[in-house]
Amino acid sequence: MPVTPEQQAEIATLCARSRPTLRTTSEGMEQHLYTVRDVLDHGFVRVIDYMGDDAAICQAARVSYGRGTRAVQDDEGLIRYLMRHSHSTPFEMCEVKFHVKLPVFVARQWIRHRTANVNEYSARYSILDREFYIPAPEQVAAQSAVNNQGRGAVLEGEEAARVLEMLRADAARCYDHYEAMISREGQQGLARELARMNLPANVYTQWYWKVDLHNLFHFLRLRADRHAQYEIRVYAEAIRAIVADWVPMACKAFEDYRLGGVALSAAGLDCVRRMLRGEEVTRETSGMSRGEWREFTEALGVDTDG
Amino acid sequence: MPVTPEQQAEIATLCARSRPTLRTTSEGMEQHLYTVRDVLDHGFVRVIDYMGDDAAICQAARVSYGRGTRAVQDDEGLIRYLMRHSHSTPFEMCEVKFHVKLPVFVARQWIRHRTANVNEYSARYSILDREFYIPAPEQVAAQSAVNNQGRGAVLEGEEAARVLEMLRADAARCYDHYEAMISREGQQGLARELARMNLPANVYTQWYWKVDLHNLFHFLRLRADRHAQYEIRVYAEAIRAIVADWVPMACKAFEDYRLGGVALSAAGLDCVRRMLRGEEVTRETSGMSRGEWREFTEALGVDTDG
Amino acid sequence: MPVTPEQQAEIATLCARSRPTLRTTSEGMEQHLYTVRDVLDHGFVRVIDYMGDDAAICQAARVSYGRGTRAVQDDEGLIRYLMRHSHSTPFEMCEVKFHVKLPVFVARQWIRHRTANVNEYSARYSILDREFYIPAPEQVAAQSAVNNQGRGAVLEGEEAARVLEMLRADAARCYDHYEAMISREGQQGLARELARMNLPANVYTQWYWKVDLHNLFHFLRLRADRHAQYEIRVYAEAIRAIVADWVPMACKAFEDYRLGGVALSAAGLDCVRRMLRGEEVTRETSGMSRGEWREFTEALGVDTDG
Amino acid sequence: MPVTPEQQAEIATLCARSRPTLRTTSEGMEQHLYTVRDVLDHGFVRVIDYMGDDAAICQAARVSYGRGTRAVQDDEGLIRYLMRHSHSTPFEMCEVKFHVKLPVFVARQWIRHRTANVNEYSARYSILDREFYIPAPEQVAAQSAVNNQGRGAVLEGEEAARVLEMLRADAARCYDHYEAMISREGQQGLARELARMNLPANVYTQWYWKVDLHNLFHFLRLRADRHAQYEIRVYAEAIRAIVADWVPMACKAFEDYRLGGVALSAAGLDCVRRMLRGEEVTRETSGMSRGEWREFTEALGVDTDG
Repeated sequence: MPVTPEQQAEIATLCARSRPTLRTTSEGMEQHLYTVRDVLDHGFVRVIDYMGDDAAICQAARVSYGRGTRAVQDDEGLIRYLMRHSHSTPFEMCEVKFHVKLPVFVARQWIRHRTANVNEYSARYSILDREFYIPAPEQVAAQSAVNNQGRGAVLEGEEAARVLEMLRADAARCYDHYEAMISREGQQGLARELARMNLPANVYTQWYWKVDLHNLFHFLRLRADRHAQYEIRVYAEAIRAIVADWVPMACKAFEDYRLGGVALSAAGLDCVRRMLRGEEVTRETSGMSRGEWREFTEALGVDTDG
Repeated sequence: MPVTPEQQAEIATLCARSRPTLRTTSEGMEQHLYTVRDVLDHGFVRVIDYMGDDAAICQAARVSYGRGTRAVQDDEGLIRYLMRHSHSTPFEMCEVKFHVKLPVFVARQWIRHRTANVNEYSARYSILDREFYIPAPEQVAAQSAVNNQGRGAVLEGEEAARVLEMLRADAARCYDHYEAMISREGQQGLARELARMNLPANVYTQWYWKVDLHNLFHFLRLRADRHAQYEIRVYAEAIRAIVADWVPMACKAFEDYRLGGVALSAAGLDCVRRMLRGEEVTRETSGMSRGEWREFTEALGVDTDG
Repeated sequence: MPVTPEQQAEIATLCARSRPTLRTTSEGMEQHLYTVRDVLDHGFVRVIDYMGDDAAICQAARVSYGRGTRAVQDDEGLIRYLMRHSHSTPFEMCEVKFHVKLPVFVARQWIRHRTANVNEYSARYSILDREFYIPAPEQVAAQSAVNNQGRGAVLEGEEAARVLEMLRADAARCYDHYEAMISREGQQGLARELARMNLPANVYTQWYWKVDLHNLFHFLRLRADRHAQYEIRVYAEAIRAIVADWVPMACKAFEDYRLGGVALSAAGLDCVRRMLRGEEVTRETSGMSRGEWREFTEALGVDTDG
Repeated sequence: MPVTPEQQAEIATLCARSRPTLRTTSEGMEQHLYTVRDVLDHGFVRVIDYMGDDAAICQAARVSYGRGTRAVQDDEGLIRYLMRHSHSTPFEMCEVKFHVKLPVFVARQWIRHRTANVNEYSARYSILDREFYIPAPEQVAAQSAVNNQGRGAVLEGEEAARVLEMLRADAARCYDHYEAMISREGQQGLARELARMNLPANVYTQWYWKVDLHNLFHFLRLRADRHAQYEIRVYAEAIRAIVADWVPMACKAFEDYRLGGVALSAAGLDCVRRMLRGEEVTRETSGMSRGEWREFTEALGVDTDG
């Protein structure tokens, strides 16, 4: 269970205590504050604080463009214009802070997004809990045969069982030894900063993660993508659902222009133009590499023998 | 007058409209929201939004240090510990957004602080107002004779009058021509993005500026310093007064450990140790350069003939 | 003349002095080192130093993907794969440093690219030269009637002449007064940090600007774009020509996948699919706004009455 | 052995191949290029590339300060002035790229320095080697009794032996199972991105790490400090030795003003002033907390009963 009864009581207190503010509020986001959204077997995502809403994006854009934005009548039109034309700075005017519990190997991917603020649980100071990510059976998948990075078919029967048994047994043994090493009963006890090195990468850690909306969208574009590793994608999807309630107009624009869209290269654009003129285009006449052509035809839903 | 009656009415509306929130609030900061703090002759600083308070800093630190922070009983002690030991990440968990009106030559210094979010009024889209910074008489100072960068004695009499007259006349003429160039009466009107190049650096611009508390303290350390140019220092001081009401514990720690403190070099530390042992130390035996020795003795309030 | 005889002599010396190094070198880039590429009437761009080449991008990528990249045989294929899939970190492994002389109003746009290192000439310490950007006649254009930001037709005859005369006269007068204010002849002389406020935004400044290749490509995508203001675009184009000699494979991939490409939204992608199936799509059935539809049909070169 | 014979041959080739360049070179740094500096039991640091030297710092500073820097005659004086007054941007004009092999738990601390470029070996694509950090006996230390973070006395005898045996056995077993899971012999083989979660935090990874000199000094100040964890400190010290050969003047200034210095708070400064006037100052009259007083008296080498 990811949240202790103690923490549950604290969350209930926080959710019951409303205060007056003169700041912009997002009603959709107030519903999410502090509450726990479960992710994976022991992880979670919680909103701790936020700043701004859809209107704050427009307010900042209107400072920039002044009277020049009068032509754009409504907020939604303005937000879609900003997203379409990659005017990213107004989206940086919104900020959000999450409390996340996640396996270390997920944290290692996540932290590569540098434009964010992080406070992580320190295993130099404190003792980690005995909690490890063990994949659900439907996630125990083989190495992909066509993609160097990624998964193929789900493992079955004995092979899957053997994998899960190894993961469980090794995590348990490593944690037993971690505890034994730091124990002070009848001994000095190894320094925590050393003992932690015995724990595998599926042990859970937690952090506060604060990011602006523009950089959060960049995170979601990479991590809510179908090529992202499943174990980070489920966090990205949980966050995306929260963002949809926080800044519904901006999130819709992001989904239309970024997540659901596709980038055409100069060659791809040329092919589309030729195809629209009725010309037959093949891999050979496209000027694309084999890989690029496959991605191109998949994106356009074109049947091809290329 | 920096704020139009229209804007005054909008501010009054915003200040009258309180909403319930589950978020952390800072009572000291709520008093500042939206209200205009005048700076220089036409400039201002206004708080538009904020996230977090002193408690939010501690909350983030306690996630990092977990049970290891139990020893530190109270929030203030923890905040002072974090500041003293340069643990900067918990301070990044607070965020603030200002609306600032400022002369362009101040904006050019300010923007060098890169870790912030900015939306500036665009003179490509919109027409700038006829507002220029003209220094108050007591700010019309000569080039410093001892410091390559900075001001010396205040100019007096005819010289001062002549300077102010030049600044006023050139600003007026440049703005007249700016208006004449973009005017569409009986002509096509020059593109705004070109016409703006005729305006001097004391014309006012405005922006939304959003920054986390750690980086704001860094800004204040450099810009509220007595070596900073007066025209940016007054903005830094206005912001510092606001921060003191927003996060009083953190601001106090910042003033004690950063603003009011001093960094001793290895040589400086060695000299202090020797002086405390009763040894007489001179510039020659200090191992310092002339400039460093002057700064050292000034900082320690030591009388010296070195 | 943007470069003094003194500087010309220094450049000649630097270009004559070759040293042995074990580092990666780019022959194309060595040709550009130190030499002045004129931009606008008094500006320039010079390469001062660089790190890495096309091979360095591949080297970094191969550390990341290890044996997984064996399938990609050649460097060019790998670079194109990285660019196509927005794997940006290997491009960050190349770095370049420019010396740029540019008008202040261009510098103000340029500096908004935050992920770079800058040392600018300081008018607090030093006296600016009497050099101002005066547009060539074919650049004296009217405000665009269809685009809130940007230029329309070139001004002609008397109107153009009047604009150029104002720009020239105001710059000259402002500089005369700048000099008069700081002069110490028979007076104390105003502090430089104050006097500079009298100079218009077309005065030239200069800086050292250091940036990694990924962030440089981002700069070029925004500033070498046809919607960018002409006066910054000419700098971007000068830099792009240099980059093409420095990292020819990466630059080619950037041009194919970024500069020459186009981003389709979810709605745009859906329209293209329908059009390729032979369906007639109009603005009304596209699900797009008027502005988006115009951009979409222009990009695809589709004739439309929408 | 950290470097394979294959890699040794490649390094020998690189070190034998000198090329002419017009760029600034640092003779001290050329000696380090590509060569392996061993760290810990299987780790290393290698310089892959660099940009700039001490002269490049001065060159950038002189662009900023123009004629204002004429007073400072020599490069070393200028560099010391810049360091003393926290003028950090000229130091950003130097850049260095390292190839580092390091345990994952060290990598997790290291990556928190966000202002750097990184390409890490990807265990999604590739198979990690069977290499684990096992501390040398003199590093197997107990949790500190006085410091929540850090180490106390070295463990001895049976306790130490037991710890080392656990670390060795668990690493070996986890790696055996990692191999068994991904093996394709007679089975599909688990996806690498999943299997890696079974490996403990002392497994080695490697990356390319590129950083500017200002941010590298910040890294060294935190990580070459005696409070840093030993396992990252040894990397910082290896890098510091390299930097001393690369930019000897800047490194000396950094050591004098940062590493060897100390920051006095407002209270500390006041105490020093009083002590220099002959006043007796105690913890009670210092205005400091117990912890701050302890640090203060230690720094000044003052004997105290406080």
